[in-house]
Amino acid sequence: MHTDRVDRVRQGDLRAGSRLMRDLDDRIPKAIEELKSLYAHTGRGYIVGVTGNPGSGKSTVVDALIALYREQGLRVGVVAVDPTSPFSGGAILGDRIRMQRHALDPGVFIRSLATRGHLGGLSRSTFDVVSVLDALGFDRILVETVGVGQDEIDVMRAAHTSIVITVPGLGDDIQALKAGILEIADVLVVNKADREGVDRAVRDLTHMLQLRGHDERAQIEIVRTIAARGLGEGSGVRALAAAIDAHRERWDGGEEGRRRARDRAAAHVGDIVRDRLAERAARRMREQGGLDAVADKVAAREQDPYTAAEDILRDL
Amino acid sequence: MHTDRVDRVRQGDLRAGSRLMRDLDDRIPKAIEELKSLYAHTGRGYIVGVTGNPGSGKSTVVDALIALYREQGLRVGVVAVDPTSPFSGGAILGDRIRMQRHALDPGVFIRSLATRGHLGGLSRSTFDVVSVLDALGFDRILVETVGVGQDEIDVMRAAHTSIVITVPGLGDDIQALKAGILEIADVLVVNKADREGVDRAVRDLTHMLQLRGHDERAQIEIVRTIAARGLGEGSGVRALAAAIDAHRERWDGGEEGRRRARDRAAAHVGDIVRDRLAERAARRMREQGGLDAVADKVAAREQDPYTAAEDILRDL
Repeated sequence: MHTDRVDRVRQGDLRAGSRLMRDLDDRIPKAIEELKSLYAHTGRGYIVGVTGNPGSGKSTVVDALIALYREQGLRVGVVAVDPTSPFSGGAILGDRIRMQRHALDPGVFIRSLATRGHLGGLSRSTFDVVSVLDALGFDRILVETVGVGQDEIDVMRAAHTSIVITVPGLGDDIQALKAGILEIADVLVVNKADREGVDRAVRDLTHMLQLRGHDERAQIEIVRTIAARGLGEGSGVRALAAAIDAHRERWDGGEEGRRRARDRAAAHVGDIVRDRLAERAARRMREQGGLDAVADKVAAREQDPYTAAEDILRDL
Repeated sequence: MHTDRVDRVRQGDLRAGSRLMRDLDDRIPKAIEELKSLYAHTGRGYIVGVTGNPGSGKSTVVDALIALYREQGLRVGVVAVDPTSPFSGGAILGDRIRMQRHALDPGVFIRSLATRGHLGGLSRSTFDVVSVLDALGFDRILVETVGVGQDEIDVMRAAHTSIVITVPGLGDDIQALKAGILEIADVLVVNKADREGVDRAVRDLTHMLQLRGHDERAQIEIVRTIAARGLGEGSGVRALAAAIDAHRERWDGGEEGRRRARDRAAAHVGDIVRDRLAERAARRMREQGGLDAVADKVAAREQDPYTAAEDILRDL
């Protein structure tokens, strides 16, 4: 569907882009048709995922990266994904306040995404917002997520380069950066590297990478940052940007790059399929009077939940 | 399906229960039929959910609760849910080592649940394991989850009483206990209460509860614990157990209790329906040669992901 709004987004009209994101969030059919038209014009923005433990200073790192990219004349879009927040929309979350200093810079656009009510569609929504930011012409798109759960892992699949941030002194909590997260990390960051225990944290991470038998070719760099210093001497943020560029150059244009592009596309399509099926199921359940009637029987142990589910599925 | 294993589980045979859990994890049809038979014999165990930030000492609190319940002669089942781990099965995770001291106690049974490959079915799996523990005759069933994402919120729906743990001095990270998590908390715990900042943490939580306009009748208690002291003087663990009991007594048998039981049942049935639909979709996509063919076209921007998804859905 070719509309005025499609043209305006392609011309970089942030207001039109913002409204399109909102309409996509509300699953307005026209918006989805517009996104279809825009999709052919995406693929230029470079997508960087950033995740890590609460308290690791993710927002500060993202803030410093934004400042660095702006210094380089690049336009930066940010998707701040918070699986625990009920609010989508502008950058309204408390820990986003730091980013507000970019609020008046038209070269920076920040969009918050929440999960509540999305029924597992957070990853799909992230792909959608990333596509719109890409069509708007942003050179770098940062996807920041809070936490280390499956939601975050799913969300990070949208990125070309995934950064996982930790801090020294979390001790056992280095375990929170377990399997799933390490699997997706392309660059590891030890932030607050002026703290005691930074060497141990780097050693632990190196050890975990070895344990997990990471291919040497994967070359996962471990970067130390003190993001609170901004872009200053010893902040490490330039080293981080360099590690991102190095990762990009390693796979760009090659077989690994094609594999990743295919994986991203498959994840996006898979998300949409699952999302639509969940919608379909929810609609049918509503049509059948919702789950209330069966829930009472199940709660009273008059019926088991599997039989109840099978009854519903039979009619789907 | 009435089998020997159904009888053995009802008689409290942990080996049979453990195998049934494994078979449910593998979605073996016979196991699901057995769970259906067992379901009528569940509903006696009291289910307590425990979640909180990484580093909040969840495992230590759970450990102390187990010890206290054992002292009271109660049998305790534990489901340790880790959305970032690829491993389901025995208590093999590092931070579960503390619980190993209960390993030889037949009155304690610990099962780890991981998310990888579950395609959003973690919540369903938790319900399944809880049902088996319930049928095995455990008096208290503790569901411990790592992290504060949507996965954890979903998992906590299986509980009668939900405990959210935080620690002093996380500063901004109190925000990680945002909306979603506070919504499900029945009891709030400030662990490591010998640390500086405990009063501020309690004040912040009180303030957040007020901000969220919690009904006064909801009476969310804030308990201070120093779980590392075990059951000792000033550990606060007995106060926590008392708060759990108080929460139980407040709603047990009343309208609120019926509403919660209905919600739990609806969540369980809904999980199974979604899970089955996702399986169905995955099977159909595999039959159609997987997502590889469309993913290539989408990655090359020859087709947009929505049109690709709609093509797949048309055939479902």
